[in-house]
Amino acid sequence: MEAFRNFLNKYTSIPENEWQQIWSAFEMKKFRKNEMILSEGQICRFFYFMELGMIRFFINNDGEEITKFFTVAPYCFTSKESFRNQKPATENIQALENIVAWQINLGQANKLLKLKSWESFTRKFMHEVQTYTEELLLESKTQTAEQRYFNLQQKYPELINKIPLKHLASFLGIAPQSLSRIRNRNK
Amino acid sequence: MEAFRNFLNKYTSIPENEWQQIWSAFEMKKFRKNEMILSEGQICRFFYFMELGMIRFFINNDGEEITKFFTVAPYCFTSKESFRNQKPATENIQALENIVAWQINLGQANKLLKLKSWESFTRKFMHEVQTYTEELLLESKTQTAEQRYFNLQQKYPELINKIPLKHLASFLGIAPQSLSRIRNRNK
Repeated sequence: MEAFRNFLNKYTSIPENEWQQIWSAFEMKKFRKNEMILSEGQICRFFYFMELGMIRFFINNDGEEITKFFTVAPYCFTSKESFRNQKPATENIQALENIVAWQINLGQANKLLKLKSWESFTRKFMHEVQTYTEELLLESKTQTAEQRYFNLQQKYPELINKIPLKHLASFLGIAPQSLSRIRNRNK
Repeated sequence: MEAFRNFLNKYTSIPENEWQQIWSAFEMKKFRKNEMILSEGQICRFFYFMELGMIRFFINNDGEEITKFFTVAPYCFTSKESFRNQKPATENIQALENIVAWQINLGQANKLLKLKSWESFTRKFMHEVQTYTEELLLESKTQTAEQRYFNLQQKYPELINKIPLKHLASFLGIAPQSLSRIRNRNK
């Protein structure tokens, strides 16, 4: 859990007694590479801190899988609408590598919100996710798939080669063949 | 301010004493149609509740204005990153109609966060904005400009004709001529 404490400290300072409560609430959970962490129609029961690994969020669109986001450890994730309202998810979450994560359920998450440090962390974390989502949306309006591929490469230089080509292509909104051509042009 | 109280009540219940504090903190502000509420490079000093009117967020991209979002009253808005960190904005906000709004500065907003009702409202509001942004991102990956135009038309049937064609086209990521063709095909 030290990785989690370090992660939280980047957002807000956590007094020792509050850290003890956070620490007690989370349980460890592992997922194997390619395992589905959440499938469309299931209720997302947990909010996760991912200590190791990488996941993708995707939806099914007329039989085609469209990747919405990649999330890379150390980071937190959940299927927000499903988790907050405990209703069936409209998206899927899949492990792209072996995952070590820590989880809490909604009741525990709501209890933790009474801690000043946890409330502050979740608020700042939400702002960060919102800013990132807006950036992606703006990139989709202003940049070519090739530019967006280079952004991703710059941001996650070591990880981009671990993501299967088809997922990367659907995230960029292009055919896998087009992504191969972009990669070959820039070897 | 009754419109604001009704708006907040959709998210969370506001005890009378907390409403009094919220009410005291906000000041009225009007903007004329086409007026710039915020220009790139300025610091966004306020968080707004827009009681009447409609605005657009846009950026300059190589001399071209790209519309990111439209926001329609009654709703809250700010340039989040600029407001929270009091640093120069990377986006512009423009009134598309005459606006009646209510504003608070960052110090006041932080004070209000100590109220349970205001903290709850801002958290739920942020979730709603995040969900909407994710929806737009997903639509940009899965739908044609024509489909996205119809979504907008369904969501804001009375307002869509008030938005200048060029702003609507840049929001959809297409040329104004292409949007004209979509409109003419569906008359």
